[in-house]
Amino acid sequence: MDYVYGPGRNHLFVPGPVNIPEQVLRAMNRNNEDYRSPAIPAMTKTLLEDVKKIFKTTSGTPFLFPTTGTGAWESALTNTLSPGDRTVSFLIGQFSLLWIDQQQRLNFNVDVVESEWGRGADLDILESKLASDTAHTIKAICIVHNETATGVTNNLSTVRKILDAYQHPALLLVDGVSSICALDFRMDEWGVDVALTGSQKALSLPTGLGIVCASPKALEASKTAKSVRVFFDWNDYLKFYKFGTYWPYTPSIQLLYGLRAALDLIFEEGLDDVILRHKRLGTATRLAVEAWGLKNCTEKEEWYSDTVTAVVVPPNIDSSEIVKRAWKRYNLSLGLGLNKVAGKVFRIGHLGHLNELQLLGCLAGVEMILKDVGYPVKLGSGVAAASAYLQNNIPLIPSRI
Amino acid sequence: MDYVYGPGRNHLFVPGPVNIPEQVLRAMNRNNEDYRSPAIPAMTKTLLEDVKKIFKTTSGTPFLFPTTGTGAWESALTNTLSPGDRTVSFLIGQFSLLWIDQQQRLNFNVDVVESEWGRGADLDILESKLASDTAHTIKAICIVHNETATGVTNNLSTVRKILDAYQHPALLLVDGVSSICALDFRMDEWGVDVALTGSQKALSLPTGLGIVCASPKALEASKTAKSVRVFFDWNDYLKFYKFGTYWPYTPSIQLLYGLRAALDLIFEEGLDDVILRHKRLGTATRLAVEAWGLKNCTEKEEWYSDTVTAVVVPPNIDSSEIVKRAWKRYNLSLGLGLNKVAGKVFRIGHLGHLNELQLLGCLAGVEMILKDVGYPVKLGSGVAAASAYLQNNIPLIPSRI
Amino acid sequence: MDYVYGPGRNHLFVPGPVNIPEQVLRAMNRNNEDYRSPAIPAMTKTLLEDVKKIFKTTSGTPFLFPTTGTGAWESALTNTLSPGDRTVSFLIGQFSLLWIDQQQRLNFNVDVVESEWGRGADLDILESKLASDTAHTIKAICIVHNETATGVTNNLSTVRKILDAYQHPALLLVDGVSSICALDFRMDEWGVDVALTGSQKALSLPTGLGIVCASPKALEASKTAKSVRVFFDWNDYLKFYKFGTYWPYTPSIQLLYGLRAALDLIFEEGLDDVILRHKRLGTATRLAVEAWGLKNCTEKEEWYSDTVTAVVVPPNIDSSEIVKRAWKRYNLSLGLGLNKVAGKVFRIGHLGHLNELQLLGCLAGVEMILKDVGYPVKLGSGVAAASAYLQNNIPLIPSRI
Amino acid sequence: MDYVYGPGRNHLFVPGPVNIPEQVLRAMNRNNEDYRSPAIPAMTKTLLEDVKKIFKTTSGTPFLFPTTGTGAWESALTNTLSPGDRTVSFLIGQFSLLWIDQQQRLNFNVDVVESEWGRGADLDILESKLASDTAHTIKAICIVHNETATGVTNNLSTVRKILDAYQHPALLLVDGVSSICALDFRMDEWGVDVALTGSQKALSLPTGLGIVCASPKALEASKTAKSVRVFFDWNDYLKFYKFGTYWPYTPSIQLLYGLRAALDLIFEEGLDDVILRHKRLGTATRLAVEAWGLKNCTEKEEWYSDTVTAVVVPPNIDSSEIVKRAWKRYNLSLGLGLNKVAGKVFRIGHLGHLNELQLLGCLAGVEMILKDVGYPVKLGSGVAAASAYLQNNIPLIPSRI
Repeated sequence: MDYVYGPGRNHLFVPGPVNIPEQVLRAMNRNNEDYRSPAIPAMTKTLLEDVKKIFKTTSGTPFLFPTTGTGAWESALTNTLSPGDRTVSFLIGQFSLLWIDQQQRLNFNVDVVESEWGRGADLDILESKLASDTAHTIKAICIVHNETATGVTNNLSTVRKILDAYQHPALLLVDGVSSICALDFRMDEWGVDVALTGSQKALSLPTGLGIVCASPKALEASKTAKSVRVFFDWNDYLKFYKFGTYWPYTPSIQLLYGLRAALDLIFEEGLDDVILRHKRLGTATRLAVEAWGLKNCTEKEEWYSDTVTAVVVPPNIDSSEIVKRAWKRYNLSLGLGLNKVAGKVFRIGHLGHLNELQLLGCLAGVEMILKDVGYPVKLGSGVAAASAYLQNNIPLIPSRI
Repeated sequence: MDYVYGPGRNHLFVPGPVNIPEQVLRAMNRNNEDYRSPAIPAMTKTLLEDVKKIFKTTSGTPFLFPTTGTGAWESALTNTLSPGDRTVSFLIGQFSLLWIDQQQRLNFNVDVVESEWGRGADLDILESKLASDTAHTIKAICIVHNETATGVTNNLSTVRKILDAYQHPALLLVDGVSSICALDFRMDEWGVDVALTGSQKALSLPTGLGIVCASPKALEASKTAKSVRVFFDWNDYLKFYKFGTYWPYTPSIQLLYGLRAALDLIFEEGLDDVILRHKRLGTATRLAVEAWGLKNCTEKEEWYSDTVTAVVVPPNIDSSEIVKRAWKRYNLSLGLGLNKVAGKVFRIGHLGHLNELQLLGCLAGVEMILKDVGYPVKLGSGVAAASAYLQNNIPLIPSRI
Repeated sequence: MDYVYGPGRNHLFVPGPVNIPEQVLRAMNRNNEDYRSPAIPAMTKTLLEDVKKIFKTTSGTPFLFPTTGTGAWESALTNTLSPGDRTVSFLIGQFSLLWIDQQQRLNFNVDVVESEWGRGADLDILESKLASDTAHTIKAICIVHNETATGVTNNLSTVRKILDAYQHPALLLVDGVSSICALDFRMDEWGVDVALTGSQKALSLPTGLGIVCASPKALEASKTAKSVRVFFDWNDYLKFYKFGTYWPYTPSIQLLYGLRAALDLIFEEGLDDVILRHKRLGTATRLAVEAWGLKNCTEKEEWYSDTVTAVVVPPNIDSSEIVKRAWKRYNLSLGLGLNKVAGKVFRIGHLGHLNELQLLGCLAGVEMILKDVGYPVKLGSGVAAASAYLQNNIPLIPSRI
Repeated sequence: MDYVYGPGRNHLFVPGPVNIPEQVLRAMNRNNEDYRSPAIPAMTKTLLEDVKKIFKTTSGTPFLFPTTGTGAWESALTNTLSPGDRTVSFLIGQFSLLWIDQQQRLNFNVDVVESEWGRGADLDILESKLASDTAHTIKAICIVHNETATGVTNNLSTVRKILDAYQHPALLLVDGVSSICALDFRMDEWGVDVALTGSQKALSLPTGLGIVCASPKALEASKTAKSVRVFFDWNDYLKFYKFGTYWPYTPSIQLLYGLRAALDLIFEEGLDDVILRHKRLGTATRLAVEAWGLKNCTEKEEWYSDTVTAVVVPPNIDSSEIVKRAWKRYNLSLGLGLNKVAGKVFRIGHLGHLNELQLLGCLAGVEMILKDVGYPVKLGSGVAAASAYLQNNIPLIPSRI
């Protein structure tokens, strides 16, 4: 019937795509519609207004591209930069690596600042580069808010402070793919010029929307940016925004209704409470990892990620075996270690529409798998540590009080 | 948007209605159809054939009533008995109580054999009644295979042995609502005359089908049974079976497609493996209860139920508070204590389309709730006990090896 | 993939089950829930309140039985009457015939008033029977509002007038299966004591809810009615209404949410506008039949039905062939002629969630089929007649003005 | 509940997005999955193999981009051409215009061959250009197979013949957005180098997949094409094809399952029968237009399109009013006239999962609207003409014989 059957629910704990709420599945369960009827623009208007809230911006302009995070990256770069422009980009894991690769292929002059995988962006180097760049050759700072491969969250507020300290005009381009709607993110306050995310991450939708938000300064930059672009051109959207029809080409009707439902759910829970829930889930996961006697791939607490935890396995264990076993025996989907950390870490995604008992079920599964592969874990230890914390911190569900 | 919102999945651990597999939800997500077209009878034919397999009968005749378990009871009784007929019925909990109430209101002469709630049917009394009933005044033995209120499984094979020992012709009518498709049940081998279940139990469908299966002896009895019946009359179905159109009145198209999908899933996993999975889930739950230092409402191991566990709380705790808290704080649905055991037990349903990690998430939740209400549980202890057992017993998922 | 594949949508024009709106399909596309949580009673309360509106009653008490129309009949009868009670019942087609059969099998003393199929209930005979029944031996008048087999609508307001004229206390029991939510029906104004419908008719839901509404007088009668009943007993519901938990046994969660959505749609369109839409669809269909030179099975205009039209075919044509051909060649589902009119009529159901262009597509199909089977129809003639009427009468869609 | 409510089904007759079959909606009604588990690559493998069949190619390499038709265009161009390359492009309507605009913005040297809107590509000019291009400066011929704005189908087989006659090595790039899966298209036989379509057209899926198929010659060209590309780069896919993991970035799980279901439906009906069905629907539509006394925007029969018909309205009528009225009064979605033909034509899309009775309902609606806006149409005339043709040509549904 399906491609691979297993009894009971699949426990989806990769850091994306994530679990879709039933409410969103329902909203998307529909036939196509004429996107040129008055109904779709009317809904789109509410979406564009509301999507700004998840970026915490009032001055930004959002774009809903029918694409993935990779396409959203391309849109952010090509609309604001010209070939040959110098970018400072932080390489701290597989996804920042891929973004840098894209920047290079798009012919920017990429000044790569590399850190050990497991560490955050080296902001001291950023500072020294800005300090010496009195000629303002640096056109953009490209940084992932949360590196999904290692579970590292960068401090964007500090990035802004450094830029301000040197009154440097470089644009601040932020990959918020595994952060927005889950981690504290403040586009206006932190002076982010382009922020972007993908629908299949903390918004808990299917893949298919690359959501990009541009500051007024970024929009201004787009007027002179010479990078070749058509599909990802903001200007094509802006033209249709003015017409009030919004769409330069056919949108996915289903994803629009899905986004409407997803935003409604987030606002019903409260965006700040959603972020607090992610903090709880992240903390609980880290307590479990500690109780198992394993190391978090993230070196320091300041970089801990509340959306994904990369767990380092002992040298005698192949982390891919853990992921394979999770799927083959427990109907549990965990994230692989990628590139430099392949075989060395496995990842627990704890983002999106998820609650504490789902996570505890996952942690109980990981314990059994660790034992399966020969690691001397004490069964129940991680769950005990996590639930001791959770039991003190889970709030009542507001609508049920 | 919905009536009561909570983040993440609801953890549904009441002993019915239970979790519906995505495959079944998909199969039911459809418009109505003309049930008189050739398509519906063609599908119905496969359903009637395949539904016999879940009763383990080849000689039985199944009926798919658009009703609930209560209606299925009524169908079983009114088609086989006449007003005034003597039944021997075992009262061991709320659901056997309700069935007995129905028997009395249908004007049978009910010989009630009561046990303490938490104990199984008293088969010694059955034996003595049969022994003394040389005139064969007893027309039917009515017994629940699994009492959902207390988590007690009766031994049907012994009932059959006793009947055979006395060569007693009484019909054996079995409520298999919370057993069929989950516990070992053998209609032909155990000489069950009418067995029945509801779609929302181990079949993991929505409520709406009362599935009744009649032995040749029961069909024979229906020819002379004088109880008034129309909607629940087997004969109306048999007439349409002969026509090959199958339905005396409009069936639910969606439930038929859903049943098709549910049966396909069960056969893909293998009915015996489904039963083994329930045994694993039941055992794991009982180990957790023991680890928490709590008592199973079921007095003896011989009656332990692999589909529902009723957990006795200490006298100073109100079990309703546990159920309420589960729902208000953890998005977890547990079963209330009913009638005599109201406030004294809460119930964990572990039947239907469910896997081990789902159960462990539930058990972790129960631990936190126990602590919430002041019971001195060691967090993680139940999960540890359950997963120690599970880690040794969960098989690989066959389709993924 | 499915049982019988055909390209494009199935054109469902049987008089039930009917087309389900996408909004309702979406609302029902959900996992099971604990029906004992606070959420389900809260929703049920709104359902019971709102369902009264479709019966146009403020004093009635509604019951949502997990059953079909046949079960709803049984509930109406057994709760209000005692074995041996005299009913006056009108036999005017297959469904009134089946209801009468049920009344007889339930041991009432049925006084059958038969009409030619195609004619309405003979109210002159009713009058004479009431006139002579000064002893009030007649306990109930049983009448279908709309006979689905022949497309005949009875005049309930006249029935009430006759009863009042003789100040006769007989209960008025009405089968509104193919009328309620589609035809003008006024429970309170017409003094109907029990009215009932099924979810798969004009409510445009799947089969599975038998909706019964009882007047205060009917409720009073239920206190002394001696018919045996358990599953269909109103009293079991009333008990749980008082508790505020509403359900004596497990309801279908999906149908409750579906009913909520269905009622919302009806109220959004406006019940009276829904009824007007049915009048338009009925009129258009009859104009087409006339244009084809065919006869409506319904003899007189006063009985014309706005939910189903039975079309009489010429003697040399077998109407079953038309239905078969519709399905085999045009993916169109029409209603068969039943019993006395088998082979002589085919039926076009035009009820539920349906609009004018859907009907015109059906009529165009019927024209082609008539030609297929050798009837000398002028293609386009029926559509022309119907659309000439519709073009003058379809209103703008209010939400789109 | 929804953005704009209207009773009954929406009649969706824009030339995309089109009606989605229930089977496909069901297949897509699912949670996200880990796309790195073995299940997704296993399914993807079947998709890539089967998708070649709809292009009628065995040597082509397909790519499933998470994008729209506009993105698919960009992929076709940037992978095969370098900035400054000369393309010959035919401007015959709004969509070819947009593609030409894209080519210009991507810095190709576009040699535009314009026709009157309503006429096909001028192949005489193509011939003369090729004849004089002995230096082979023309690198690609860009042509839409079917211009969706005017309902014009170009003759690709002649294009190939001309190319062959001059043994010209230019690549042949074909926009098959509104043709593939609906019109006769033969990638290998016609020597098409890149063909592309979008999921929301004849494949009857939601928007979100840009399906591009490249010939061996196109793949070879991609090795030296210097256009900047990352997201749309074929090479990133080819790398993952070799790994057997297929996806360089997260695909839409739902669209993959949807595509699987859509292809299954097309193969079950038979691709050639699907194309024949479109020929029937196109012919029937044109017969209706003729019967109404209106002109087809397409000038000559050789260019008639079987997927969309643009109907020219008399000068005193604004075609936008027709589209508006269709939506406001009849719940019918028609296509607007675009750009040069705005106000002058309205479009009837007749592609995708659609059958004859659906079309006849639409035609009956158009007749009423024409009357609404003052055009002296004879109601029923178009339906009569269309159904006279259809009644002779619709085959029995194979699975129902």
